[in-house]
Amino acid sequence: LKYTVLKISVISGILVFLLWLSIFVYASFYYIYMPHASHVNEAYFEFDVCENGVGMCSFPTANVTFGKYGREEILRAGQTYRILVDLELPESPINQEIGMFMVKVQMYDRTGKLTARSSRSAVLHYQSFLLKIIKTLAFAPAFIAGLSEEKQTLQVEIFSAYVDDLNYPSVGTLIEIQNKKIQIYSAKLNIFAYFTGLRYYLFYWPASSGAVGIACNFVFFCVIAALSWYKYF
Amino acid sequence: LKYTVLKISVISGILVFLLWLSIFVYASFYYIYMPHASHVNEAYFEFDVCENGVGMCSFPTANVTFGKYGREEILRAGQTYRILVDLELPESPINQEIGMFMVKVQMYDRTGKLTARSSRSAVLHYQSFLLKIIKTLAFAPAFIAGLSEEKQTLQVEIFSAYVDDLNYPSVGTLIEIQNKKIQIYSAKLNIFAYFTGLRYYLFYWPASSGAVGIACNFVFFCVIAALSWYKYF
Amino acid sequence: LKYTVLKISVISGILVFLLWLSIFVYASFYYIYMPHASHVNEAYFEFDVCENGVGMCSFPTANVTFGKYGREEILRAGQTYRILVDLELPESPINQEIGMFMVKVQMYDRTGKLTARSSRSAVLHYQSFLLKIIKTLAFAPAFIAGLSEEKQTLQVEIFSAYVDDLNYPSVGTLIEIQNKKIQIYSAKLNIFAYFTGLRYYLFYWPASSGAVGIACNFVFFCVIAALSWYKYF
Repeated sequence: LKYTVLKISVISGILVFLLWLSIFVYASFYYIYMPHASHVNEAYFEFDVCENGVGMCSFPTANVTFGKYGREEILRAGQTYRILVDLELPESPINQEIGMFMVKVQMYDRTGKLTARSSRSAVLHYQSFLLKIIKTLAFAPAFIAGLSEEKQTLQVEIFSAYVDDLNYPSVGTLIEIQNKKIQIYSAKLNIFAYFTGLRYYLFYWPASSGAVGIACNFVFFCVIAALSWYKYF
Repeated sequence: LKYTVLKISVISGILVFLLWLSIFVYASFYYIYMPHASHVNEAYFEFDVCENGVGMCSFPTANVTFGKYGREEILRAGQTYRILVDLELPESPINQEIGMFMVKVQMYDRTGKLTARSSRSAVLHYQSFLLKIIKTLAFAPAFIAGLSEEKQTLQVEIFSAYVDDLNYPSVGTLIEIQNKKIQIYSAKLNIFAYFTGLRYYLFYWPASSGAVGIACNFVFFCVIAALSWYKYF
Repeated sequence: LKYTVLKISVISGILVFLLWLSIFVYASFYYIYMPHASHVNEAYFEFDVCENGVGMCSFPTANVTFGKYGREEILRAGQTYRILVDLELPESPINQEIGMFMVKVQMYDRTGKLTARSSRSAVLHYQSFLLKIIKTLAFAPAFIAGLSEEKQTLQVEIFSAYVDDLNYPSVGTLIEIQNKKIQIYSAKLNIFAYFTGLRYYLFYWPASSGAVGIACNFVFFCVIAALSWYKYF
């Protein structure tokens, strides 16, 4: 009996190790294979302060120029781009209360002419009171250590397939968050070259492709482990 | 006695395995056999912001054009379609309070002429306080890992049998959610070719047909297992 | 003693098995013998949204045409029909609070002329706080698995004996739920050919006839089992 228990525990230990290895290998592959944003630009919001000196009296607006040194035409003509705005918002009661808000984006060219516009709605993800407590307790060590905080990152897809106008190439963008009570930590404008093939599946079905990838790795490692076992014992 | 216990545990283990196998085979069959939506289009909602800069002052409306590149006539004349709107809503207190809301859909043709309209009511599914707590605790690991969240997906059937007008083929649709307090994560317009025969039963009676299918598989596998058992022992 | 205990357990096992068999046979009989609705039509409710963009400002009303393709005269003249409306309602606090509500049904003919009308009251079935807790805990696995949810299905009998007018045959019906706060998941209009004889009893006294039927089956199976027992032992 002792021998059986030992055997089972050794085998389960090996399986857990192989599972962790599969996840690690998949994560590394994902990180290396998936393209990072072609262009990432920080968006800095500005707004008018109210007469009484507190609060916003205009929508927070950010002017983002592509490229590092002012008005550069960096989008390649003919290339399809995905343009996303990443908003980092605190999970404060005010942000929870405002409900849906519009993110309005206007692209302009070198002369300031409007080249494209898009409006998308977004909303902070809801968490019930109980779930918040559970999450806070679960992540308390990370919160205390300052590694994490109670915020959400909303990825708002502004253009799913943007092609630049050859005659009026865009050099920058105006991002307007149409809400006067919102609290924003920071925002980023991400421009990705459009994904095709495997990258497309990895991006749009991360859970499914992750499960498939990890399962394949796991089976592969198990086969190797089993072969090694039978060879040496 | 030991022998009997061993025998019973082996048999029950085999039965559990066969049950899992039946479910797996049925799920695979269902996934392969059932057609995926002919056309899936993301719906992006827009609304007017109120004067005071917070909240919605018009109904959220989404303009969805069929096809990927603008106004295409993609619906085949004479073919019957089922048209559904999938709404992903957070289970927030605001969404619970608004009660029933109307989803109004207007189809238009290439010239902008209205070709069909439909209004359907929908309501978030109710969960009592106690059930919410039980569910939150049961799914806490998934919530913490970010695999799941507290939302509901409502499938609103807009047209159960839509046939396109030959002379005025539809190229797009206007979706209006007639409520100014609602919070929507995302929405999809799904167009299915109409199901007939077995697919019809699988779609409209998923529980019954699933039970029948799994039971058939289970009996089949049990017979095979029993035959194998009697042959080799 | 051992022999007696064994005998009693065997006999009670057989009795339980016979009881289950009786219930199964009765259920099969009921399912095969009772007619399904002659015509089932989904009712889709529409209502006017209030000025402020939230809530209902007219009664939810559904226009149901009989037959699949518009205005068909499908009710046979001279035949008596039972017409029921099945309402699927969430057990939400709002629905519990509204108390009784009227279901008003108007039948109309091909020219839109009113042919029959009926109003019936309905009310959600009450469950005390403690019973709800017990039920939630008892059905928790089904709720979590998504097989069941906290709703009630009210069968409102609109006409117990409807005979169509030969000169003005009905082609559709207007269903109005006279309450502006109600939450409805879905509704169905069921038209049954009138039951006579045994079917009548089975439909209107399901509990009594079920008890009688199962008892008869049970006695019958017990007699058979007893005879078999005495013949072989």
